[in-house]
Amino acid sequence: MTSQELFRNILDKKSFLCVGLDPEISRLPLSVADADDPIFEFNRRIIDATHRYTAAYKPNFAFYESYGQKGMAALDKTVRYINKLDTNIFIIADAKRGDIGNTSKMYARAVFAEMPFDAVTVAPYMGEDSVTPFLTYPGKWAVILALTSNRGADDFQYHTEKGQRLFERVLTVSQRWGTTDNIMYVVGATRAEMLADIRKIIPDHFLLVPGVGAQGGSLEEVVKYGMNKRCGLLVNSSRGIIYADSTERFAEVAGEKAREMQEEMAGYLKGLKR
Amino acid sequence: MTSQELFRNILDKKSFLCVGLDPEISRLPLSVADADDPIFEFNRRIIDATHRYTAAYKPNFAFYESYGQKGMAALDKTVRYINKLDTNIFIIADAKRGDIGNTSKMYARAVFAEMPFDAVTVAPYMGEDSVTPFLTYPGKWAVILALTSNRGADDFQYHTEKGQRLFERVLTVSQRWGTTDNIMYVVGATRAEMLADIRKIIPDHFLLVPGVGAQGGSLEEVVKYGMNKRCGLLVNSSRGIIYADSTERFAEVAGEKAREMQEEMAGYLKGLKR
Repeated sequence: MTSQELFRNILDKKSFLCVGLDPEISRLPLSVADADDPIFEFNRRIIDATHRYTAAYKPNFAFYESYGQKGMAALDKTVRYINKLDTNIFIIADAKRGDIGNTSKMYARAVFAEMPFDAVTVAPYMGEDSVTPFLTYPGKWAVILALTSNRGADDFQYHTEKGQRLFERVLTVSQRWGTTDNIMYVVGATRAEMLADIRKIIPDHFLLVPGVGAQGGSLEEVVKYGMNKRCGLLVNSSRGIIYADSTERFAEVAGEKAREMQEEMAGYLKGLKR
Repeated sequence: MTSQELFRNILDKKSFLCVGLDPEISRLPLSVADADDPIFEFNRRIIDATHRYTAAYKPNFAFYESYGQKGMAALDKTVRYINKLDTNIFIIADAKRGDIGNTSKMYARAVFAEMPFDAVTVAPYMGEDSVTPFLTYPGKWAVILALTSNRGADDFQYHTEKGQRLFERVLTVSQRWGTTDNIMYVVGATRAEMLADIRKIIPDHFLLVPGVGAQGGSLEEVVKYGMNKRCGLLVNSSRGIIYADSTERFAEVAGEKAREMQEEMAGYLKGLKR
């Protein structure tokens, strides 16, 4: 998918919402926990209830790997289910990959050839050859960590050389490795005011923004500082949608929460031209 | 396993060799490629031929994930095979994990509860809460990336604030999160002279050193600058051992290569006291 196609899909859906699919068996309502494949069943019901309001889904690999091979089978089934339902939905493998060149090449194969993901999140610590193998699949994306939404972001991401913070160096250096059609960046909503600084370095790239909702970030602030003329944002919500309700009504409530976010987003998208 | 137990095993084996298990189907000899489970069959024959000379194994997750669920099943079988053969062998999940706290917790569960690994490699970019969940399993280790052996290491790891390079900050800050019994660090052999600087910051920690052999690093240099009084080193070789020969003699030759490294290592270990 090109950035122009992603923008078109966002306008068609009137939504730049990304729903995080992070299933935890201990949190599943009874009717799901008793299913043959509870993880897939949970995801399927969430997807059915939310896909009308959603531009992207982001399954977090940890939540599948922690259930071993059954979990990975459920992940595979989930991605194919989304793809069959609506090929225009952007699907992000939230796996935080990154290793030396020949190894990253294998990780890229895992998410882009073995599974039909559109994008994968990548940690930048190991530099250029750890990221570029993800950029060789036409239409596929690397989503590079820049400024994350967690407390630990302060430990290293603000390390400053000659006025340039590490996350700014990551943005400056890594944008040369690809294009606005195959690189986007993770920037946490908990630091929305930083988005203004970030837009000076990368005005045109799409940003994947976690941290709205459960982690305390505000959608309005993210839009104010981060939106560009082709939207340039995918805003993720995981727990705020999929665990908004813990009863048998979980899917219905998830759909309502997604719709609320979509309606707010539709307002912000009004001024943008195709 | 404690660091003292790891040191004892190294002295018993007279080896601090770690063999990287990175199977690529396209490189497998015919008799293996035709087996029911070629990846496991390759690993099994490599392990049978090398385990007498080996203190640790390090399967690289990318090489398994890239074959989808079959690959992950072969990985699981491989780890259990090593564990059954010799419980004193240290097994490292080379997965370069790291995410926000509640996600890293799930990754830790995947490698330590679902599979019997002793350690997992972790990328430090996201800071403290991305690493500490790996330190809560008694006897299990996080192996944090400090200075890697690839070309891209120059892009960000030398970013310098007030004379402190990023990899030095990672060492300085992260050692407070755990102990010498649950944290070790990745330091590439291609920069062996840097080991002297690194030992000033972390004199007592174990280091996992990739890059000897195929990537050009020298074992002698690594020992000179990196060994401490409890050895403090696991030196990894992957391609230099497992792909030393591409014929039906691959396992035999891998065993010979491992034995050669073990014999050189035995010499370096002579001066150390239990």
